[in-house]
Amino acid sequence: MAYQRFETETRVRPDDMDRNQHVHNSCYFNYVLAARYDQMERCYKMSMEEFIKLGLGWVVRTAHLDFKRPLNLGERFIVRTWIEEILKDGVKVRFEILRKTNGKLACDGWLHYTLINLQTARATPIPDWVVAKYAI
Amino acid sequence: MAYQRFETETRVRPDDMDRNQHVHNSCYFNYVLAARYDQMERCYKMSMEEFIKLGLGWVVRTAHLDFKRPLNLGERFIVRTWIEEILKDGVKVRFEILRKTNGKLACDGWLHYTLINLQTARATPIPDWVVAKYAI
Amino acid sequence: MAYQRFETETRVRPDDMDRNQHVHNSCYFNYVLAARYDQMERCYKMSMEEFIKLGLGWVVRTAHLDFKRPLNLGERFIVRTWIEEILKDGVKVRFEILRKTNGKLACDGWLHYTLINLQTARATPIPDWVVAKYAI
Amino acid sequence: MAYQRFETETRVRPDDMDRNQHVHNSCYFNYVLAARYDQMERCYKMSMEEFIKLGLGWVVRTAHLDFKRPLNLGERFIVRTWIEEILKDGVKVRFEILRKTNGKLACDGWLHYTLINLQTARATPIPDWVVAKYAI
Repeated sequence: MAYQRFETETRVRPDDMDRNQHVHNSCYFNYVLAARYDQMERCYKMSMEEFIKLGLGWVVRTAHLDFKRPLNLGERFIVRTWIEEILKDGVKVRFEILRKTNGKLACDGWLHYTLINLQTARATPIPDWVVAKYAI
Repeated sequence: MAYQRFETETRVRPDDMDRNQHVHNSCYFNYVLAARYDQMERCYKMSMEEFIKLGLGWVVRTAHLDFKRPLNLGERFIVRTWIEEILKDGVKVRFEILRKTNGKLACDGWLHYTLINLQTARATPIPDWVVAKYAI
Repeated sequence: MAYQRFETETRVRPDDMDRNQHVHNSCYFNYVLAARYDQMERCYKMSMEEFIKLGLGWVVRTAHLDFKRPLNLGERFIVRTWIEEILKDGVKVRFEILRKTNGKLACDGWLHYTLINLQTARATPIPDWVVAKYAI
Repeated sequence: MAYQRFETETRVRPDDMDRNQHVHNSCYFNYVLAARYDQMERCYKMSMEEFIKLGLGWVVRTAHLDFKRPLNLGERFIVRTWIEEILKDGVKVRFEILRKTNGKLACDGWLHYTLINLQTARATPIPDWVVAKYAI
């Protein structure tokens, strides 16, 4: 089964730049997290805030990033993410960060998110209604 | 003489949040710097990169920020900036950060930028053609 | 009355650098906030966490920063802060950021902190016992 | 062959915190990059600056981070890194971020760094003298 791919367009901020005139490595990670926040609300119709109100939270268990081409100051880019697999207590999300001007890949990789019960801070099985929301 | 006011709209990123569920104080500063970058290119038609190519740079000499109301996760906001005064070797720029939803003020203040010669790292008089670009 | 001055020594992180090979402007602000956290606990014997447990919080109302000399990659520096004035519902804190190697001033300025009631998010008078803790 | 392990001790800054009272995911990445900077200079006796002077640079090609336990505000921690493998044009570096108080693992993973020629921005074979410096 292939899940839908969603896109968020944004722009490099000056404070994202590193001393080598490129976007700082850790910012690509921030860009993906930001895109998922946006897409949870806009595309999956279930924002992080709504999860929190229900006593649930998504935490990153593993992050894997492959850097291909640097983004530059003020550059516009697209973060495309999609669910690769829904696991018992988490989801594996793949991502691509693409330059807006030419569609070339700046960075790709994946994140493994775990659903946690905010009271216990422990992993909890993903409820069926969440699976249904994500299975698009 | 009153200079024109320019606006940049943007959005709070998750990594801008602090532990109190508000945007971290220093991020408002970043938002203003980012808006000036954008407006230099888009509104004044003279980007920071073009200054750098000419061996010139703008550095912040003083920053003054008054925090009024916090911005929240994912919130859209407008950074309005305008030149208050063009000095011999710098400009005083005022700013307002406004919530998109209701126009309420989140933060205001001013920045004093100095023009420097990148070779010497020292302040340099603002050339007339820069004054002309900024006197809009 | 002159209040005591406290110092926190720390070091520039690579991710603090901007594209001009200097520490990014907003990081100096972060350095001062970090030094106050440290000094609240270590010097005033009342950490931010202890305030929070009592339903109180300190928020920055105004920040004023004068940039004198840039800090460089990996550079060690000292953040010296002291209370200039204890107000009814806040404190005015002055700071200096000094290069470790030669004691030269990199940045100075002041922060106006307001004490708030975390339940109402409104300013609250500083209790006498806090004044006593700070009046050293 | 097993390479030596080096440690850098540092401390969580308030601006590293995320909205869930933990260190923001991308900051662990910054901590590792900062530790390598420190250890290149202090342990391998060859700082990033010295590489740059020779027209060489290290860029991150892949980052892999496994999050185990969150770090908290003000917490002291140790970043231990070591070379796992020296490749033709890069090095694979493993890392562990450990809580100072109890030695428990907060995050581990690895980075693949590529050596580049700063003029061409392309990968370049690691010179023998660099291999010698790193083979400790």
